Amino acid sequence: MTRTTLIKGGLVITAAEEMPADVLIEDGRIAAIAAQNSALAASFSADRTLDATGRYVVPGGVDAHTHMDFPFGGTFSSDDFETGTRAAAWGGTTTIVDFAVQTKGHALREGLDQWHAKADGRCAVDYAFHMILSDVNEGTLKEMDALVEEGVTSFKMFMAYPGVFYSDDGQILRAMQRTAANGGLTMMHAENGIAIDVLVEQALAAGRTDPRHHGEVRKALLEAEATHRAIQLARVAGSPLYVVHVSASEAVEQLAAARGMDLPVFGETCPQYLYLSTDNLAEPDFGGAKYVCSTPLRPREHQAALWRALRTDDLQVVSTDHCPFCFTGQKELGRGDFSKIPNGMPGVEHRMDLLHQAVVEGNLTRRRWIDLACASPARMFGLYPKKGTLAPGADADIVIYDPHAQQTLSAETHHMNVDYSAYEGKRVTGRVETVLSRGEPVVERGDYTGRAGHGSYVPRGICQLLG
Amino acid sequence: MTRTTLIKGGLVITAAEEMPADVLIEDGRIAAIAAQNSALAASFSADRTLDATGRYVVPGGVDAHTHMDFPFGGTFSSDDFETGTRAAAWGGTTTIVDFAVQTKGHALREGLDQWHAKADGRCAVDYAFHMILSDVNEGTLKEMDALVEEGVTSFKMFMAYPGVFYSDDGQILRAMQRTAANGGLTMMHAENGIAIDVLVEQALAAGRTDPRHHGEVRKALLEAEATHRAIQLARVAGSPLYVVHVSASEAVEQLAAARGMDLPVFGETCPQYLYLSTDNLAEPDFGGAKYVCSTPLRPREHQAALWRALRTDDLQVVSTDHCPFCFTGQKELGRGDFSKIPNGMPGVEHRMDLLHQAVVEGNLTRRRWIDLACASPARMFGLYPKKGTLAPGADADIVIYDPHAQQTLSAETHHMNVDYSAYEGKRVTGRVETVLSRGEPVVERGDYTGRAGHGSYVPRGICQLLG
Amino acid sequence: MTRTTLIKGGLVITAAEEMPADVLIEDGRIAAIAAQNSALAASFSADRTLDATGRYVVPGGVDAHTHMDFPFGGTFSSDDFETGTRAAAWGGTTTIVDFAVQTKGHALREGLDQWHAKADGRCAVDYAFHMILSDVNEGTLKEMDALVEEGVTSFKMFMAYPGVFYSDDGQILRAMQRTAANGGLTMMHAENGIAIDVLVEQALAAGRTDPRHHGEVRKALLEAEATHRAIQLARVAGSPLYVVHVSASEAVEQLAAARGMDLPVFGETCPQYLYLSTDNLAEPDFGGAKYVCSTPLRPREHQAALWRALRTDDLQVVSTDHCPFCFTGQKELGRGDFSKIPNGMPGVEHRMDLLHQAVVEGNLTRRRWIDLACASPARMFGLYPKKGTLAPGADADIVIYDPHAQQTLSAETHHMNVDYSAYEGKRVTGRVETVLSRGEPVVERGDYTGRAGHGSYVPRGICQLLG
Amino acid sequence: MTRTTLIKGGLVITAAEEMPADVLIEDGRIAAIAAQNSALAASFSADRTLDATGRYVVPGGVDAHTHMDFPFGGTFSSDDFETGTRAAAWGGTTTIVDFAVQTKGHALREGLDQWHAKADGRCAVDYAFHMILSDVNEGTLKEMDALVEEGVTSFKMFMAYPGVFYSDDGQILRAMQRTAANGGLTMMHAENGIAIDVLVEQALAAGRTDPRHHGEVRKALLEAEATHRAIQLARVAGSPLYVVHVSASEAVEQLAAARGMDLPVFGETCPQYLYLSTDNLAEPDFGGAKYVCSTPLRPREHQAALWRALRTDDLQVVSTDHCPFCFTGQKELGRGDFSKIPNGMPGVEHRMDLLHQAVVEGNLTRRRWIDLACASPARMFGLYPKKGTLAPGADADIVIYDPHAQQTLSAETHHMNVDYSAYEGKRVTGRVETVLSRGEPVVERGDYTGRAGHGSYVPRGICQLLG
Repeated sequence: MTRTTLIKGGLVITAAEEMPADVLIEDGRIAAIAAQNSALAASFSADRTLDATGRYVVPGGVDAHTHMDFPFGGTFSSDDFETGTRAAAWGGTTTIVDFAVQTKGHALREGLDQWHAKADGRCAVDYAFHMILSDVNEGTLKEMDALVEEGVTSFKMFMAYPGVFYSDDGQILRAMQRTAANGGLTMMHAENGIAIDVLVEQALAAGRTDPRHHGEVRKALLEAEATHRAIQLARVAGSPLYVVHVSASEAVEQLAAARGMDLPVFGETCPQYLYLSTDNLAEPDFGGAKYVCSTPLRPREHQAALWRALRTDDLQVVSTDHCPFCFTGQKELGRGDFSKIPNGMPGVEHRMDLLHQAVVEGNLTRRRWIDLACASPARMFGLYPKKGTLAPGADADIVIYDPHAQQTLSAETHHMNVDYSAYEGKRVTGRVETVLSRGEPVVERGDYTGRAGHGSYVPRGICQLLG
Repeated sequence: MTRTTLIKGGLVITAAEEMPADVLIEDGRIAAIAAQNSALAASFSADRTLDATGRYVVPGGVDAHTHMDFPFGGTFSSDDFETGTRAAAWGGTTTIVDFAVQTKGHALREGLDQWHAKADGRCAVDYAFHMILSDVNEGTLKEMDALVEEGVTSFKMFMAYPGVFYSDDGQILRAMQRTAANGGLTMMHAENGIAIDVLVEQALAAGRTDPRHHGEVRKALLEAEATHRAIQLARVAGSPLYVVHVSASEAVEQLAAARGMDLPVFGETCPQYLYLSTDNLAEPDFGGAKYVCSTPLRPREHQAALWRALRTDDLQVVSTDHCPFCFTGQKELGRGDFSKIPNGMPGVEHRMDLLHQAVVEGNLTRRRWIDLACASPARMFGLYPKKGTLAPGADADIVIYDPHAQQTLSAETHHMNVDYSAYEGKRVTGRVETVLSRGEPVVERGDYTGRAGHGSYVPRGICQLLG
Repeated sequence: MTRTTLIKGGLVITAAEEMPADVLIEDGRIAAIAAQNSALAASFSADRTLDATGRYVVPGGVDAHTHMDFPFGGTFSSDDFETGTRAAAWGGTTTIVDFAVQTKGHALREGLDQWHAKADGRCAVDYAFHMILSDVNEGTLKEMDALVEEGVTSFKMFMAYPGVFYSDDGQILRAMQRTAANGGLTMMHAENGIAIDVLVEQALAAGRTDPRHHGEVRKALLEAEATHRAIQLARVAGSPLYVVHVSASEAVEQLAAARGMDLPVFGETCPQYLYLSTDNLAEPDFGGAKYVCSTPLRPREHQAALWRALRTDDLQVVSTDHCPFCFTGQKELGRGDFSKIPNGMPGVEHRMDLLHQAVVEGNLTRRRWIDLACASPARMFGLYPKKGTLAPGADADIVIYDPHAQQTLSAETHHMNVDYSAYEGKRVTGRVETVLSRGEPVVERGDYTGRAGHGSYVPRGICQLLG
Repeated sequence: MTRTTLIKGGLVITAAEEMPADVLIEDGRIAAIAAQNSALAASFSADRTLDATGRYVVPGGVDAHTHMDFPFGGTFSSDDFETGTRAAAWGGTTTIVDFAVQTKGHALREGLDQWHAKADGRCAVDYAFHMILSDVNEGTLKEMDALVEEGVTSFKMFMAYPGVFYSDDGQILRAMQRTAANGGLTMMHAENGIAIDVLVEQALAAGRTDPRHHGEVRKALLEAEATHRAIQLARVAGSPLYVVHVSASEAVEQLAAARGMDLPVFGETCPQYLYLSTDNLAEPDFGGAKYVCSTPLRPREHQAALWRALRTDDLQVVSTDHCPFCFTGQKELGRGDFSKIPNGMPGVEHRMDLLHQAVVEGNLTRRRWIDLACASPARMFGLYPKKGTLAPGADADIVIYDPHAQQTLSAETHHMNVDYSAYEGKRVTGRVETVLSRGEPVVERGDYTGRAGHGSYVPRGICQLLG
């Protein structure tokens, strides 16, 4: 029998529309959206009614870049799929796309199976997978086709991290050619790792071992260089390209130039690049280690270029690159050698709030907030219209958002499994009030009402932003 | 008592979404959109049901640039508000924004009253007005504030036509400063008319009098120049800018550069620039006169730049600049002197079809079709969400569109009051089947069911595309 | 009988070469340049020998932009041809190109005759004329051809100063077309004067009357706009273009873009834009009036763009726009109304030193110093190789320059007929020691040895920088 | 005792000047240049007088890129230092800079010694060396300093040819850092060889084995990519950069962008890219093999961009990349596999003529001809003013050039040791008449009067084009 929920009285906001409307849910999917002053809406009855008066009613967030239970530098990211997706739910994110990892010398399938095993039965919200290619060869190229077929439609490669995840330009070209044929999307960590490693070695040899040197050796020009290179390789291959965690204004310029040519080139940035800077990397007493991630935080003046690119659509997605490591015991591995600090920061819980803060501060419109956080990542990674919007037929992944509530971000109150907050003490306006995942409340007015295992694996279609 | 209409079984397409959904209309407005497989949709009943199976259900078109009953070169455009809006309805356009004209030396109010009188009681579909400023002075600057208040929120000036509509850079700057303060939007005909008039005089003196010389003297560089100048003046004034009928790739580059800087600079093009070229202007036996409009048609190679800009959002709107003059008796005024040919072309009826043809030919996506033809002009000119989308609460201006029907454009079959077609014999795929204006059928499966006077004046808000 | 002078022991520097060489002069022209260690040089004897050991031997400067005895705002520039060219000689400049002025409604010839009369018999060094077009019409267009024939090969128009020197875009286009045919070079004062006058009026109406508002209303964007416009008009006309006194980085960008397209577009800047800024315009007690000129001084950050453009050859010439008005009695005309301050600054005496200072400070190479100050203006305005270089056959306009001498610029010591120095107290390294004009010493180790009337009128050929 | 030569009656042309002047040579160096109508010139007597009436007198050419006796693909280029420099002399080139090669695993010194041995006693004209780095490591980095000291001041690396000459980005960065410290100049073969090798493998696997596929796999975008990358690496290292044999318009854009930023980035192109195209690579019967070189010939439309860049100084040097392989026996090694065709073309003899042809055809001015062919390469590689110009004190490397003579290029008449001409049958206007090397005639009115061993090794200083 059909189970119905009605969300009444709110302002429904999608990437495209803002409307005072009521949302009727049947069995986990949106059945209808109705004008609040209509006779139809007046006639609605439902098993359960949520009052959204004075609230926004927005799609659940789609975080297209997380690393739960991720091996890096001899340790693992501190959130597993249970703690990480619960924190996501708290923050209004109802879908994550995590990265399954191929181990060099092993099949993609093996890595994917492993990640299914990590996630299965543990997630609070829905999840999907990208695949990290660590070893492009005839075998893995063939496997890519099969993965696209079964819903793993995006493949990440690294121009950084030689000896670990690094692919050379020939491998990248081959993989891109394959996606040009099978519909997959190449995702790129665009930093010239070969050159960076020279600078790392020189920095360490010269005794420049503090966390801030992590930012200094990973130069903006070397991000821009790799971004340009990836774009040209994609043009040669005839494939689309998605550049992850763009942080340098010079890299943005490369993306903007490609967009100006109408090339299928996309980019994401992350809240840390919008709100934090090399000032944080220079925090004393090894405190900068908390902010070590790659691409690195940049000097403040890069932030304006990122905001501008988010407005001009030269960047299309804001994801978190959530990859937390505890300060104690994990980040500390790099005391005396910044290159040993595990790369990554926590963030999955704060993305929706930090982007809403941009609305408050005038950097984004409300609709662009939802576009960047929900609709655009869903389209980019083939989850639309099931995810990312509020429309008849879509999954009822819905957030009731209080735009006026005030909160202070802190490790004391966050729900991520990590012993520090990158935004400790930051005050923001706006807060998630209630979260539905496929119609089920997982957060309700400050209580977590979800459960591990509610979240399902979502096979994805191909990128929906290709003309 | 509430009167309801149900549109069942179609594919609803907006600028943002595509969904198999049923649309319930109450008293001329959209009450709800419901998933076709929902229990709710199954329970719908309505006074009238339209079957849209196999059809698109799209918003009625918004044509933001028409000139009905417009005085030019000693004659008047051949469509008045009755014939012109009826033709619009036939073509699936349910709102036009026409240009009221200030006569030099007279008040804006006087011109606006005159245009209200021309339109009142005659229109088949809804209409609104821009105001043409022919005379910027202290009086008219003050009047602008009042007009914005009452819903005439955009003001067009001309850098062309010295002695007629021309405003100099000082007048333009003053008017822009005023809109910066009152929320209005400056629209610009961007051609360096002072320089063009020199070239016109030289061409005529040299006996180059054929219609094709109209295209040769109005140089692409002089459109680009004026576009650049208008942008810089808007920057000085701190005002937004909307450039009408962009035709030259060099002008597009100027807009793209401004967009790249995140400036509030917008542009429209028209179907004639996308499908026609200087080849048409060179048609023999004075036939080129049919295609004389300003900015002029350009060599074919400009078309690719326009299509690209429509995809990259460097151009946001496609309108028609509908301003028809009959070949016989009107265009003929310019035999032996191209500068005497009334400037303008018919087009209000074909815009939706010609843009759908771009979908068929792979130049645009379906959603971008609706964005350019409906949503974006509605937002640009403060008509959203009443017009331009299908959403609960919006006016039920709806087109049921058959994407597979074939038709041939011709003066024999079109409904515009003009004796030729600019697209004579062109075959296109797709055709308007049924058109509702505020819930009332005005075209129904090939019959015109509307009436003069159904169409109402719509006061507009300010531009909704500003951050 | 041949009269010979030998300059021995110096480092000869031209735009292209640096060589320890001796220069033999016969009857006012360079007969030969010989290697110092050659047998030939050892055999030289001459009527007069100048020892240049430890000195540079460089071409006399060519200042392509001066206004002696120039009417502006109801007064005249305070240097006439006698005082002005004497000051030029003191500063190592041996040729000036001054601007003859057409009075509106009068013939070019009349203006040119008047300027010949002003200069004839009074000049210390050689001089030539540009012609200012105040009134482009059929008559003046025809006169242009004759002037080119007789050696007045460049024509300046103003996009600023409506009602005074202003030409509209049609007049500009016509004049450019004429130069495209007759070989002349169009020089442009590129500021949008029509828009600026609106801002002037608004500033004064708002009580913003101080000199610094002169800089604020003449906006960089309005210089860039006019520069772009002039370039496009020149492209339409098929003519070359020379933009005078470029001061804004945004204008430089326009020139650089044109140069990148290999267009014959050139630009000059002046020492005041390289060394002074809006800080000077803001000097208290009406002191800013000393620095009022148009284009205006810009904020400091524009200077780097100008230096860069001088290095990249996006600007080709440094001239002075020497147009001095005394502070007392002249600049003071604008107390309480900055728009009444006569526009112009003294500078003809300091150009060679201020550019050498750039060599000292690392902004220019020695050869580029000579290129910008001597060779390039000579070529630009058809004076080469007679002027602007040291080569066999060239006029013996030669400066022996002490690169190590120190001096302090000051109204107390300068030779210009003006009661203040724009560089009061500035210390520079390098100083003119001896100056020859056609072989005659006019300055010799700190004594003025020239005379009014030595300087001759030099008819010019056409621009020599056109491929 | 001093031995003197006088060149009378010619038009002396340098990169900077054109003057009717007589040149007096004493003992192999230029003693003086004198005006032809001077008393001094009239008094000249000399041991030997050459009449240059009606001729140009220009500096001997400097070819900065040759490969004599060069090992490639299992064979050696067919000109050794004797035949190659003799052909150079015939063509008016009086200095070559050849590439000494480090063998992987061996010292730079060893390679340099080997090249000295190849050249010593065999050259007709003067020569110098660049060093090819095949193996960047701690040892070779240290050797670089010594080489700069002794006059080998430029170091070439390859981003192409993996497994042979290829250096990775880390090696490149290290070598660039070293040159930033020691004053050396990095030269770069900029093609993404890693990606190209993938395309080569795919082409061969698909049976695309003809010479024209050489052009298709070495894509213009991959040249542009590597050029961009090299520029960014140089920026990170703080070093200058010289990109060899630029052929793609997209690569030119990268150089132009760098130049616009005032970066010390330079580029050369070669006559084959200016006159030949992929049409030649497609010549039948394996004829395309004659034109196989890397970077490859490009489609015709790239030529205009190269000519433009030569005029705008975005490219500074034209050299030949002379590296001939006989069609019979050498080029034929690649029948059935284009990747086996030895890369390289003959050209050292024709550079001066082919660039003069550009003067004839209006692509270059006479002065720019000399700049590109003589002065600029001499300055770039630290040979100035000894080489590259006609100035007192310079080496008397002088060409008397007949600008009106007609000749037809052909393997039948050329003097290079190779069995075909890349320009077979091409008619050009202009021909070398007499060539002096340090005052000695090596070609005199169609006779070769030189000898192996006359040519001396010239140690070089550092790049003279740096600020």
